[in-house]
Amino acid sequence: MKKIVIIGSGNVAEALVRGLSGAGCPPVQVWARGRTKATDIARLCGCAFATEVKELAPADVYIIAVTDRAIRQVAASFNFPPDSVVAHTAGSVGMDVFPPQVKNRAVLYPVQTFTKGRTVDFSETPLLIEGSSQYALRQVTEVAQMLSDKVRQMSSERRMMVHAAAVFACNFANHMYSVGEELTREAGADFEILKPLIAETAGKAVAARSPCDVQTGPAVRNDFETRSRHVELLAQKPYLQNIYINISKSIWETSKKT
Amino acid sequence: MKKIVIIGSGNVAEALVRGLSGAGCPPVQVWARGRTKATDIARLCGCAFATEVKELAPADVYIIAVTDRAIRQVAASFNFPPDSVVAHTAGSVGMDVFPPQVKNRAVLYPVQTFTKGRTVDFSETPLLIEGSSQYALRQVTEVAQMLSDKVRQMSSERRMMVHAAAVFACNFANHMYSVGEELTREAGADFEILKPLIAETAGKAVAARSPCDVQTGPAVRNDFETRSRHVELLAQKPYLQNIYINISKSIWETSKKT
Repeated sequence: MKKIVIIGSGNVAEALVRGLSGAGCPPVQVWARGRTKATDIARLCGCAFATEVKELAPADVYIIAVTDRAIRQVAASFNFPPDSVVAHTAGSVGMDVFPPQVKNRAVLYPVQTFTKGRTVDFSETPLLIEGSSQYALRQVTEVAQMLSDKVRQMSSERRMMVHAAAVFACNFANHMYSVGEELTREAGADFEILKPLIAETAGKAVAARSPCDVQTGPAVRNDFETRSRHVELLAQKPYLQNIYINISKSIWETSKKT
Repeated sequence: MKKIVIIGSGNVAEALVRGLSGAGCPPVQVWARGRTKATDIARLCGCAFATEVKELAPADVYIIAVTDRAIRQVAASFNFPPDSVVAHTAGSVGMDVFPPQVKNRAVLYPVQTFTKGRTVDFSETPLLIEGSSQYALRQVTEVAQMLSDKVRQMSSERRMMVHAAAVFACNFANHMYSVGEELTREAGADFEILKPLIAETAGKAVAARSPCDVQTGPAVRNDFETRSRHVELLAQKPYLQNIYINISKSIWETSKKT
């Protein structure tokens, strides 16, 4: 059985440990800086944990699931076995982040958002993979296929574009919910009032061929009167007014293209 | 039993007919300009339909569910019975849209997005209501409570703010999905790759106290490197670059406030 070590203790690390355990291939070790977090995650699959660099277990594949900015430093702090494969999980970080002594480099980027306390079905999560050598690619493919039915090889450059897409579809969509909450509070209501709408908006997009096909609202109808009323309403919040105008314009331009 | 006529044949009209029928109070008539659409919707509840102004049936409550810009003209074209209540369903239109001879004016605005071919659970849909008289308010309250468990009285001004909130949380969130689709195509992938992410993003926001609590991504982490890479990546699409920069800034500002 493939020996895998997970390095990290955040939400992605936790999801990987759950996913690998579910696939019948729990990691042999979880390595993390903080003892409490490392033990918490290792306990999920009953595997070993470590917090010291010199304690890193021998393995076939090391998956570094830490925040983007920490990958370089974390990777440089270990002496990985020469034949092992070292992978990271970031959307917008290339394989050149690893130090030169790491020969078999790989990426395993899950196109998903992971949040503490929420379990995500890894088998449905698209995984974008890349390898610096045939061996690295084969190893990371095998790991990815244990986790998910949606594995796809993609270059760093194209993966970064998918990551930017995910920033819009996830992070920016969530911020649209936050702005919605801010405005409902101004109206004396609260976020609850928007929840059925948010659920239905995502539900119909996921059911659609393209989200452009189900775009609704004043912008796509080119309803100038309603748009003007809203822009006026946001006069005290110029940053939101600006976002309102730009997105409305973009919706209208997109609708003409499709 | 209350006599209700639905005027219109769009998605809101259809949802109202389904909702009222489900509540055991189907409309007595569906009135619409187009014969095919009127009969299609009337058939849903087996009620009468009409396409001529002079055929409008006597009723207690008339609900005008047409596009915002058409409300004024449609309302002015009828001679409603003097004691009847005339309501519209728009978020950003006041009660002054009705002609002076309509004494009992009302609004019944569902905070939801309605799409052809998708059935929405009306009982879970928040309804914002308003009435120009005690009688109008009582009548529209009774209709709303038949449809939904989430009925709330709100002034036109505050309702317009909730409508603007809904534009962000629904229309603009959907456009973020569309931009995501555009970028995944650039990467040689398609919209399918974003669907699990979109479903999870909405799912975790709906489960949260506030969407600010579950905001993820480069902007909220103030990850300058990733943000710069994405901004550079969007150099050929200045309108998206502009949206990227402004929303990222807004996410960061919001995160400091919460």
